[in-house]
Amino acid sequence: MDPNKKTLIVFSGDLDKALAAFIIANGAAAMGNEVTMFFTFWGLNIIRKPEKVKAKHSLLQAAFGRMMPRGADRLGLSKMNFAGLGPVMMKKVMKASNISTLEELIATAKEQGITMIACTTSMEVLGLSKEELLDGVEYAGVATYFDYADDANVNLLI
Amino acid sequence: MDPNKKTLIVFSGDLDKALAAFIIANGAAAMGNEVTMFFTFWGLNIIRKPEKVKAKHSLLQAAFGRMMPRGADRLGLSKMNFAGLGPVMMKKVMKASNISTLEELIATAKEQGITMIACTTSMEVLGLSKEELLDGVEYAGVATYFDYADDANVNLLI
Amino acid sequence: MDPNKKTLIVFSGDLDKALAAFIIANGAAAMGNEVTMFFTFWGLNIIRKPEKVKAKHSLLQAAFGRMMPRGADRLGLSKMNFAGLGPVMMKKVMKASNISTLEELIATAKEQGITMIACTTSMEVLGLSKEELLDGVEYAGVATYFDYADDANVNLLI
Repeated sequence: MDPNKKTLIVFSGDLDKALAAFIIANGAAAMGNEVTMFFTFWGLNIIRKPEKVKAKHSLLQAAFGRMMPRGADRLGLSKMNFAGLGPVMMKKVMKASNISTLEELIATAKEQGITMIACTTSMEVLGLSKEELLDGVEYAGVATYFDYADDANVNLLI
Repeated sequence: MDPNKKTLIVFSGDLDKALAAFIIANGAAAMGNEVTMFFTFWGLNIIRKPEKVKAKHSLLQAAFGRMMPRGADRLGLSKMNFAGLGPVMMKKVMKASNISTLEELIATAKEQGITMIACTTSMEVLGLSKEELLDGVEYAGVATYFDYADDANVNLLI
Repeated sequence: MDPNKKTLIVFSGDLDKALAAFIIANGAAAMGNEVTMFFTFWGLNIIRKPEKVKAKHSLLQAAFGRMMPRGADRLGLSKMNFAGLGPVMMKKVMKASNISTLEELIATAKEQGITMIACTTSMEVLGLSKEELLDGVEYAGVATYFDYADDANVNLLI
């Protein structure tokens, strides 16, 4: 076990939880930690490419894919979403307070060398393919998660 | 502290989070870990018997009990539930991809010897009695949770 | 790493999750642990003063502030909220079962010396100022969280 390693499972695809996840991850990395983030279920939407990507899916998988948000700029809030008005308000407040946007936080995470892993089982459940996710993302399952978590001293799930 | 022990608090009773919980727990067990799952609040609905069980409850407790889903096959999604259509869709996609159902994952957890503990305080709050929960479940409170968590190297809450 | 230290990030502001957080934290403290709770995002509403407090906010921040619940007695449920009827029902069931209210659990946490820290970044995002939060709360960011978490053997996020 290494006191300078941290993992974070990102299950949620809500803007507020995604912000918290990246603020925690970037904070840990800035303090000299090796950080690994595992994106699973709705959390995969955070690392989805914003543009439409052609991918082979069954009809049902394609339906899920169409209904889920494409990327960090399209996420809703877990509370007070108000059909999309909540995120707009929150982004304005954040901008006025000079707090980084989620896209900027993701870019910082990459710059700091944070490992981002997409859960392949969830990708099948939600019908998401590799071409639809951000470049630089790695792909693995639960066994890989525990390889990292067993080595880390703080493991969180959001 | 034992690097081969893991605990998981399952607070949520959503199908998607329940699937993630059991995929994580079964993965850890398959890698040789002793895994303990603590079901609390809505998470208790995951290990509820599907059939109606007569139990002594106050009127208010009975009201909660009637409104909550009975067991793994009746859970909703935390996102895109669409009045029950979302779970139906997700189950179809999972079947087509040969991914185990939640019931199968629970059976595997039992076969792998995962300890499942129902939180007795939450059972009172939600008006659930032992007869209503799956056979083989153990019963305990927060002190027992920390007995396990203090011994484990990865502790998550979902 | 100290086996008698625990941390808990409280992201959620739902009554049910707040109850679980304080039951877990108080349980750990009763067993002799040093417990630190970090309130972030909606979790800040749990430690909000119930009375209206005048504070300098931008118009948008003030709008968020008005829409969010003021304190432990005004929180909703994450499930079965039914426009506020769910929490009323849950509180009645809890009273009948002699389970402490959230306000009582918070008082117990203070008596047991649990450290409560409000996340200053989230306070800016949601437009909450120090005068609006309970007395005795401390203020810090993610670096302080990891100072505590690195030292603890159980770290959870709810």
